[in-house]
Parts: sequence; C-alpha cells; structure tokens
Amino acid sequence: MVAIIDANLTRFGKRKESLLELAGEVSLPLIEKYEIDFVVVSNTYSGEFNFQSGINNLITTYLSIDNVPSIRVDNTSGSGGSAILVAKSLLDSKVANTVLVLGVEKMSEKNTKQVTSIIASLLPLEERKAGLTLPSLAGLMAKEYMRRYNAPREAFALVAVKNHYNGSLNPYAHIQKVVSLEDVLKAPIIADPLTLYEFTPISDGASALVMVKDEYAYSFTKKPVFIKGIGVSSDTSYLSGREDILSIKSVRNAGLIAKKMAKIDRIDFAELHDMATVLEIVEAEELGLLRKGEGWKAYYDNYTSIDGEMPINTSGGLNSKGHPIGASGVAQAVEAFLQIRNEAGNRQVKNARVGLSLSMAGFGNSATVIIYGDEP
Amino acid sequence: MVAIIDANLTRFGKRKESLLELAGEVSLPLIEKYEIDFVVVSNTYSGEFNFQSGINNLITTYLSIDNVPSIRVDNTSGSGGSAILVAKSLLDSKVANTVLVLGVEKMSEKNTKQVTSIIASLLPLEERKAGLTLPSLAGLMAKEYMRRYNAPREAFALVAVKNHYNGSLNPYAHIQKVVSLEDVLKAPIIADPLTLYEFTPISDGASALVMVKDEYAYSFTKKPVFIKGIGVSSDTSYLSGREDILSIKSVRNAGLIAKKMAKIDRIDFAELHDMATVLEIVEAEELGLLRKGEGWKAYYDNYTSIDGEMPINTSGGLNSKGHPIGASGVAQAVEAFLQIRNEAGNRQVKNARVGLSLSMAGFGNSATVIIYGDEP
Ligand SMILES: [Ca+2]
Repeated sequence: MVAIIDANLTRFGKRKESLLELAGEVSLPLIEKYEIDFVVVSNTYSGEFNFQSGINNLITTYLSIDNVPSIRVDNTSGSGGSAILVAKSLLDSKVANTVLVLGVEKMSEKNTKQVTSIIASLLPLEERKAGLTLPSLAGLMAKEYMRRYNAPREAFALVAVKNHYNGSLNPYAHIQKVVSLEDVLKAPIIADPLTLYEFTPISDGASALVMVKDEYAYSFTKKPVFIKGIGVSSDTSYLSGREDILSIKSVRNAGLIAKKMAKIDRIDFAELHDMATVLEIVEAEELGLLRKGEGWKAYYDNYTSIDGEMPINTSGGLNSKGHPIGASGVAQAVEAFLQIRNEAGNRQVKNARVGLSLSMAGFGNSATVIIYGDEP
Repeated sequence: MVAIIDANLTRFGKRKESLLELAGEVSLPLIEKYEIDFVVVSNTYSGEFNFQSGINNLITTYLSIDNVPSIRVDNTSGSGGSAILVAKSLLDSKVANTVLVLGVEKMSEKNTKQVTSIIASLLPLEERKAGLTLPSLAGLMAKEYMRRYNAPREAFALVAVKNHYNGSLNPYAHIQKVVSLEDVLKAPIIADPLTLYEFTPISDGASALVMVKDEYAYSFTKKPVFIKGIGVSSDTSYLSGREDILSIKSVRNAGLIAKKMAKIDRIDFAELHDMATVLEIVEAEELGLLRKGEGWKAYYDNYTSIDGEMPINTSGGLNSKGHPIGASGVAQAVEAFLQIRNEAGNRQVKNARVGLSLSMAGFGNSATVIIYGDEP
C-alpha cells in the first residue's frame, strides 16, 4: 500500500489569489522538501470558472518543475478521492515514486448563479431542463428522512451547529463562526426544510499531499499516515433514478471495499461529504458509523462531536470548512493526516489512530472511501 | 505489463451525434463483450465545448453501467496517452481487471473562433495576452527548420500529401481526400509558411480500448496487442520559454524511457502528433525515427509512406484523420492495435509487429510515448 508523508492546506474561503497562486501556496513548501516525480491535479472546473485548460501543465510551469509529468483527474465533487486512487495506482505500478496530489479550485471568479448553473451541468440533460438541482434533492431527502424515521427537523440543524463549531477551531476553514440551533433554523430556507447554514458555501482553496510507497515512508518522516484501504463505487447520475432516496449504494459499497482491504473495524473519526447536513447523517448510516434510521439521535448527545464516540467532520466538513470542488477530497485526507499525527490542535481527537474519509460526486454517482491509519 | 484486447473507433469529423452518443457508439459493442470494471474517460473540454461536467459519470449512466466506477483524465491534446498510462496503473495496482479507456470530444458545437480561443486557454496568461497561438509557433518552427537545415518549404507540404493519402484509405478519417503538393502549397496560409492543409481540422469523435493485464490477454483474444513500454515526460508550458524551438525535450525523453522499458530497438510504424506538418518531422527526429536535421529528406523518397521503411501516421494522423482532443491519443492506440493485428485494410503495413505512438499536449509540455508489440 501507500503512505502520506506530508500534507498542506490553504485557508479556504473567498481568496484574492489566482488558481495558480493557490496551487503554489500549498505546493511550493512541499516541492522544496521532496523530489516529486509526478503531480496529480484534482480539479474539475478550471475551464468553466477560470477559463484555463491544461491546468496541470500550467501549474508545474508555475512551480518551476516543468520536468515533472502531471495529469488532471476529475470526478466533480469526488475528484479528490479519485486523484488519491490514481496516485496510489501510479505508485503501485512504479510509474512514480513520490507523487504530489494537488487539489485546487477557484470558484469565486463566478457569481452564485453562475456557479450553481455550472455545477448543475453534471446532471443529465433531462433533469437540468426539469430544473432539478443537488440542493433541491437534499431537501427531498431531509423530508423523507423525517417521515420514515420520525426524525425531528432540528436533527439536521444540529449537524450544522456541530460542524460550524468544529470549523471555528480550524484555522483553514472558510467559516470560522459558531452558529446556534436558533441561527440555523431561522436562516433563509434554501431547500425546504434546509436553510442556508445547512449547505456548503462557495469557496476557493487548495490542498496537497505527498504520497510514497509505504515501505519508504519512514525514511521521510517518523509519523507517516498509511492508506490502509481504498474503495470506489458508482451509481446512477440521475437524481430521479435512485431506488430509494435514503440509500446511497455507492457509499455503502465503497465503505465495505475499503474496510475489507484495511482489515480493520475500528474507526476513530470520519470526514464525510456534508454538502447538505442531511447527507452527513445518511452517509454515516450507510458507512455503519451510525445506526440505520437512528443516525439523527447521535446529534442530540454529542456522539459525533470531537470528544464524542464517533467524531465526524472535525475539520468543519464541507459545511463550514468549505468545498472548493477539486480541493475538497484531498483536504479530507489532510485532516486525517493531521488527526492521526496528533497535530490537529484545538480540534484534536483523542487517540485518533484510524480515520475514514468519503469523497463523493453528485449524490453518490461516484464514491471513494479511504481508510487511514498510523501503521501499514 | 498490460495488453489491449479490443478497440473501437467512430468516424471522425463533423458529427451530428452528441458527445454521449459518440461515446456510446464505440463503447456499447465493447461493454456487451467484456465485463468492464473501470472506465477511464479521456476528455478535455466537455465543459467548454458542451457545457457538461462529470462526463465520466454521465457516460456510464448513458451506457447503463452505473455500477462501474469511472474517472476523467485530462492532459489537453495529450489526454489519450495519459488515460492509457492511468489505465495501465489501475491494472497494475489491481484496482481493476478490465479497463475501458474511452476517448471522446465533441468540438463542433462551437465555431472555429470559439474553439481556437478555448484551446488557447492552455497557454500561460501572458502568452495568451500577447496573442501567441499554437499554430503561430508551428509557423515559426517551420521557418527555423528551413533556415537551420537548409530544408525546402515543400518538405512540410509533402507531410500533408502523405497523410491525406493515408487518410483517404482510412474509413474512420475526417478528411478522406487526396491532396496534391500543389493543392497544399496553394491553400490559404494559416501560419506562414504553413497552409490550411498542414493543420489538423476541428473534429468530433470517440475511440475506445479494452485493456487487461498481459497474463490474461490470450484468454480474451488470439491476437492481443501488448503495451511493451510507456514513457512520460514534461516540459515548459511557455511557447516562448523553450531553449530551442526545434527541440522537443519531452518527446525525446519519453521516447527513451519507453524504448528502454520495451527493451526493443525495432519500430515498424509510428503514429505521431502532427497537429501541424512540421511537428511530424521534428518529432520523428526527436524519437530517432528519422535523422536529426535530415528528417525532411525522408519525404522525398516515400521513406515514411505506408510501404516505406518507416511508415508514419498510416491512419492519416491528426492532419487528415482529425484531432478530437480527448479521442486523439486513444485513436493512435487503436491504429496500432489494427496494424499489429494485420487488420488495417488498405493501409496495412507489411509485417507490422512493433509500433510507437506519441500523444502530446501543447508543444510538448507533456508527452507520452507508447510502444506496442505482438508479444509481451
Ligand atoms: Ca472513538
């Protein structure tokens, strides 16, 4: 398998820096320290947001590492997980020995309406024409969750309260502000019943990992973080084509594959894809982190808080840390890296030895689950 | 290593079919025959040309193989080579057993001016502002080649004559029309001295390969085509930043790596990146297929023709077959597959046992050289 030997993050948020400058902010300190021989760029929308193509080559030129081969890997919101999978494969097949995985997205060059329209371009044409959007489906999912499991509407809001609290402890988070349950409930409704604070903001940002084969990891650092398992699975792109709106098959399957590969049951913390609050609960249930249909209860007794039994989104998650598309999945791995190395500061989980991340595209048309550990 | 067990191509050209339909045309016959467990989509501009993102997921949904994981790999004009590299790595690392590599691009939804502007978005911002384009650099390259090597202007035109002739024998080529030396010379100048017939047209198209580990290849087909070597190398994105306009370092290096891996000197035919005629000559020199500074002479004695000593671009090349960006590099592998299996019809090279392809981004900011053979 492979290991992460170093990692880096920009602050997420509305940044004045260009896409190339954000890429440089995370990459330059790493290329000074390591002899990178391949760069995998996780980015989806450099063309649509920034009118730049061939971004992987522009980045290596910007970094003055023109001689280092690079590619761009895209899987929309799940690009980060896919880029890590590709980096692992490049290492396994000896194409490269030291891979820089660089996630980057600069969204704020477009306004909210433009961003929404660009992101909706990942839906099948019929659904776009019908006006379906990812947020609207999240609203439907929340309603059905409440109906089927007799869950109170507040449960979703409590996800936002927790994640904003966690984000307030993360110097790299977009929104570093605590919100109360009342704040969340009173905010403008985006997709009934979910409000503004229950969706991820539009963010710029970059994230980076240096990955090597695990047998070399200790020659670079005393505290490598090992990728113990990685599972990838896929489902329909049609929002309306799902058998059950409360089931995300790809997430469940990817989790099972990753856990089997990791040969481990213990999970000490997880970074999930909380594009909307309800998704965190449903994903945690699919991954077996919370009990099916009862996940919402965990948010009433701090079970998923940093000092709870199963901390979820200690980074603040997409909800508060932000979701610069290509940077997001890679940033989850950065959080796992920090937690397992005991370097997560105020938001450190005690005895965090095994972590899980879920990088997801759309509503699960692709899912990559990665399990990280402090030993191979 | 790995092998190609099947391959498919659409006719290139201005196609009325959508991007998804083109993808289906090459993929559906293959997914009926093989149990594909990963799809690597080679595509650069689905957002810019077609306003669709997450194209890999939209494609697997369109093909009704929603459960098969997929990613998009992009490296602009060199995407095909990168996608094959990633597929090989996924096979080596046992992420997948049977990979569909699908190249696809639908360019004709935009007009020529828009396409030119979109493709120029791969250049560094300063050079775009200065009005530099890939064709203009090809013109400069041609002039410098003539000056330094005392080569006649006709030599480049003869590349177009040969490639159009080859294209006329290829039922999948965009331009299936023979042109004379006079036709080429009299055509409108695009970048002095090079004329319209010396540049690749704007094409739609798709191409596909099924790849497996070489040890399984013979269980699928009696005539697998093996990837014996694959080399990737990189150079600056600045057109103006090259040490020598007649040197493409990345091509030379990628060729050396691939040949070393393949442990072979013999090359029976080559598919090169002839975005402009002059590039075919310079690339062939960098790859050692033609002698440095004397490559142009080969075009006066049919040396590079289908029945010559070193056939180049038997498919018609980008020049005549067309260059649907993401489909192009994968289509080179399709040509190698057909030639080595002795299935190239009218354009069959005699005793074609070892082939080479060069998939290149920009003016060599990335280059992937692949060597194919009839044995592992
Ligand atoms: Ca615990």
